[in-house]
Amino acid sequence: MEKIRQYRQAHAGQIVQELVDFVGVPNNVYVVEQIQRNSRALRAILERRSIRTELFPTATGKPLVYGELLTPGATATMLIYGHYDGVPAEPAKWHSDPYGPVLRTHLPVGPEADWSTISMPEDGSFDDDWRLFGRSVADSKNAIIAMMAALDALRAAGLQPGINLKFLFDGEEELESPCLPAVLQTYRERLSADVMISASGERHQSGRPTVEFGIRGILMFDLTVYTSTVALHSGHFGSFAPSAAFQLAHLLASMKALDGRVLIKGFYHEVAPLSESELRAIRQIPAVEEKVQRQFGIARAETEGRSLQELINLPTLNVRGIRSGFVGEEARNIIPHTATADFDVRLVRSMDPDRTLAAVAAHIEEQGWTVLDRAPSREELLAHGRVVRLRKRSGFPATRTPLDAPVAGRVVTALEQAVDEPLVVMPTEGGSLPMCLFEQVGLPFVGLPTSNFDCNQHTDDENLQLKYLFEAVDLFAALFRWEWYGPV
Amino acid sequence: MEKIRQYRQAHAGQIVQELVDFVGVPNNVYVVEQIQRNSRALRAILERRSIRTELFPTATGKPLVYGELLTPGATATMLIYGHYDGVPAEPAKWHSDPYGPVLRTHLPVGPEADWSTISMPEDGSFDDDWRLFGRSVADSKNAIIAMMAALDALRAAGLQPGINLKFLFDGEEELESPCLPAVLQTYRERLSADVMISASGERHQSGRPTVEFGIRGILMFDLTVYTSTVALHSGHFGSFAPSAAFQLAHLLASMKALDGRVLIKGFYHEVAPLSESELRAIRQIPAVEEKVQRQFGIARAETEGRSLQELINLPTLNVRGIRSGFVGEEARNIIPHTATADFDVRLVRSMDPDRTLAAVAAHIEEQGWTVLDRAPSREELLAHGRVVRLRKRSGFPATRTPLDAPVAGRVVTALEQAVDEPLVVMPTEGGSLPMCLFEQVGLPFVGLPTSNFDCNQHTDDENLQLKYLFEAVDLFAALFRWEWYGPV
Repeated sequence: MEKIRQYRQAHAGQIVQELVDFVGVPNNVYVVEQIQRNSRALRAILERRSIRTELFPTATGKPLVYGELLTPGATATMLIYGHYDGVPAEPAKWHSDPYGPVLRTHLPVGPEADWSTISMPEDGSFDDDWRLFGRSVADSKNAIIAMMAALDALRAAGLQPGINLKFLFDGEEELESPCLPAVLQTYRERLSADVMISASGERHQSGRPTVEFGIRGILMFDLTVYTSTVALHSGHFGSFAPSAAFQLAHLLASMKALDGRVLIKGFYHEVAPLSESELRAIRQIPAVEEKVQRQFGIARAETEGRSLQELINLPTLNVRGIRSGFVGEEARNIIPHTATADFDVRLVRSMDPDRTLAAVAAHIEEQGWTVLDRAPSREELLAHGRVVRLRKRSGFPATRTPLDAPVAGRVVTALEQAVDEPLVVMPTEGGSLPMCLFEQVGLPFVGLPTSNFDCNQHTDDENLQLKYLFEAVDLFAALFRWEWYGPV
Repeated sequence: MEKIRQYRQAHAGQIVQELVDFVGVPNNVYVVEQIQRNSRALRAILERRSIRTELFPTATGKPLVYGELLTPGATATMLIYGHYDGVPAEPAKWHSDPYGPVLRTHLPVGPEADWSTISMPEDGSFDDDWRLFGRSVADSKNAIIAMMAALDALRAAGLQPGINLKFLFDGEEELESPCLPAVLQTYRERLSADVMISASGERHQSGRPTVEFGIRGILMFDLTVYTSTVALHSGHFGSFAPSAAFQLAHLLASMKALDGRVLIKGFYHEVAPLSESELRAIRQIPAVEEKVQRQFGIARAETEGRSLQELINLPTLNVRGIRSGFVGEEARNIIPHTATADFDVRLVRSMDPDRTLAAVAAHIEEQGWTVLDRAPSREELLAHGRVVRLRKRSGFPATRTPLDAPVAGRVVTALEQAVDEPLVVMPTEGGSLPMCLFEQVGLPFVGLPTSNFDCNQHTDDENLQLKYLFEAVDLFAALFRWEWYGPV
C-alpha cells in the first residue's frame, strides 16, 4: 500500500487532470449525442489501460460501456458497476461552468461566501481539502478515474490484480437504468462474477471510508382525493362543498403519527430483524445525529430514541409533496376539489413494493374512502362519496448481502489494508437503487461510495473534496490486489 | 310597469347592441390605458342620458366615473355603485373573442358541446334563453346598461325618477378597489345618500330575482410550517428529519373536523344570532341543495343537517390551497422542510378579521407551535422546534343592513312591483366585498345582483342569459321610480 500511495502522490496532477478532461465532456443524460460522446471518451480511458472494451447497445441509444481485464491464474471475478451520465446542469445557478471544472480551496457557504477559484498547481502538490467543482466530479466520474489510477498504481509497483476484473458503466443511471435489466439478461454469461462492487455514492457523514452491504428498495406512489367535479366558490359554498384539502389533511394524519410511527396496519410486519453482526456493525458507526440536527436546524428528530442507523434499517413513509388549490399570489377563493400527495416509501429487506401498496390501500379504505386507480366520474362521486385515486409510480425491493456471507468478510479485509482509520461498515445504506437486478442474476451487492457527503450531487455546484479522490485510489487498489482464494 | 316592459321589448336590439359595444372596449383591470378608455366610453353612455358626469381621479390612474341626476322635488337620494373593469381574459381558452361578444342559443356543456354562434336578430326579437358571451357581459357592464335602459324606459313612458340618483362606477373593483376608501372620504359630501345599491353579482341559484341586505367579510391569511433549514434526502434522513408535509396535515386536521365543525376555540363566539325576520327570510329562500349536489357530484355536504342559507349566515374556514415539496413529474425524493396552507375565512356580522386571526394563532400555539410573522432562522428552529409563520394577507368585516330597517322594507316593496314571482330576500350573500366602506360613511348596503348564476364570471366564456338583462331593466326602473316619502 505504501507504493500505491507514493504513486498517486507523485501523479496527483495527472489523476486530477484526467478527471477534469472527462468532466469536460458534457454528459446530460437526456441528450443521446452527449452520452454517446462520453461512451467513446470512457472507452478510450479504459483502453489506455489495455482493458478489452465493448459497447453494449441499448434501445435508447445510450450504450453501457463494458471492460474486461482477466488475470492469468485468477480464480475469482469482480464486476464493478458505475455510471458516466449526469443529471442536467443549470449553468445560471452554478458559480462556474459545470463542464469546465475549477478548483476552490473549500466549499463556500452562505450568501456572502467567496466563490473565487484557484489555479491547478503546476508542481502537482494538491491540498487534500481542496475541491473540484463540475457536473459528475462526485457522481460518479470520480470513481471511474480513481479505479483507473489504482490499476496504474498497481502496475507501477510491478503488481497484478489478484482477480479477474469486469467493468460495467451505465449511461442512464440517472434515469433509473431503463435498459440495464435487458443488458444483464443478454450478457449474463459475460457478466458472471463472484461479487459486484457498485462504485458510486457518498461516504458516511463522518467522512470515514465506507462500505455498504445493502441498499434500500423504494415504492413511489401518489394519491389524489376527489370531493366534487370542479372547484367551487368558497363564499357561495363554504362549509357545504367538502374540501379536498382538509380531507387530505385528515387522511395523511391518519397514516403517520407526529412521533414518526406509521399507523398503517401491517406496514412493519415484513421487516426482518437484524442479525447479531448487523447490530454490531450499526453500533460501531459513528454518531452524527447531533451534528446533522445542528447543521439543519432540527430541534427534535421525528423519531426520538432511535439512532439514524437504526432508522435506516427500518422502512419510512415520506410525503414528497402536496398540491391542492393555489397559494400565495395565485391564491383564489375556491374550495379545492382535488388534493394530491406524492409519497416515497423506503423498503428494507423482505418487503415487497406491491404488498406495501396494498397495505396503504387497505388503510385508506378503512378510513371510509373508496380507492380507484383513476379519477372518478360524477356518478362515481355521487355513489361513493369519498374517492381516492391511488397510483403506483414505480418500485423495487431492497438488496442485501448478509454481513455473515464469506464475500462480505473478504471485502472488508481487503479494504482495511487501505485505510488507517476504522471502516464504516453499513448493513444497508439509506438510499435506493435497483441493485436487486444484480442480485437476481446471482451477483452479491457491495457498495463502495467514494464522494464527500456534502458534494451537492444532483444539484448546483457539485464538488469533490480531493482527499476522497486520492483515498479512492488506495481503496480500489486494495480491492483489486487482494487475492481471492477460490470462488466465494 | 307594463309600459316599461313594452319599451324594453321594443328596444331589445338597441339595449343588447349598447352592451355589445361597451364590452367591445377591452377592460383588463391591469392595463391603465384600457381602463381609461373604458371610463371615457362609460362617461359618454351616461351623458347620452343627460347625467352630469365627472371622473374622480385616483393614485393608480384608473378613475372612478361619477354621475348625478337630481330630480326636482325629490326628498331622498340613492347611490348606485357598480364597476366597469374586468379580470384579464385568456383568449386561447375562450370559444370566442372575449371582447367581440357573440350570441349563442344556450351555454354549451361537456367536451362534445356545440359552441356555434347565432347572428343578432335583425327584427330585435331575442329569445330570453339566449346568451351573450364576452368579458364583463355579466360582471358587470350588464348592470350599467340595464340601469341606463331603465332611465330611457321611464322617460319614454313620460315618467321621472322618484328620487335623486348618484352613480359611482369603479375601475378597479377586480383588484379589491384600492382607491375607493380615499374617494369615499374625499367626496363624502357629494356621495351622501339614503341608501347604496350595489349593482353586481349573481342572483340566487334558483334564478329568481334577488335582493341582498348583507355581504360577508373575509380574512385571508397563510401559514407555513418550518421543520428544518433545507429539504433533506428521504433515503438518508427519512424518519429522522421531521416532515413539514405531515406536520401541516396534523395541524390542519386539528383546525376543522371532517364533519365541517371548526375546532378553533372562540371561532364562533362573535357570531350574532339571526333576527326573527332574518330567519323568516331564510326559510323562504328556495332550496337548491340537491340540485347543487347532483350537478357537482357531492354525495354528502361537508356540514350535514343545515341548509346552504343557514351556512351562509355562519363563518367558514376554507383552505384555498396547499403547497409542499413536489408532486407528479416534478416529484423528487426529499423530505419537505416547509409546507404552506393558504386560507380564506368568511366573516359574518360582528366578527373582526384581526380577532379571528388571533384565535387562529392561539389555536396553533395550543398545538405546540411557536408562531412568528416571518421565516425562522436556524437558531430559532433549534430553539423552538416547531415553528409556523402566520401571515395576514388582507381582510375586512361583513356589512349588514337589518331586514327590520325602514330602508330594507322600502327597497323590497319597490322591487316587488317589477316581478311576477316572489323575490329572494337574502339577509346576506355568501361572497365578500368591502362594502363596509360604504357603511362606514353612513350608506346602508343593498345588493341587487342581475346575472345568471352560471355566468362563468372571472373565468373563460363569461356569459349572460338575456332574460337577466331584460328583467334587470324592470328592476332598476321600479327602484328608480319608487317615490321615497322623506329621508329614510
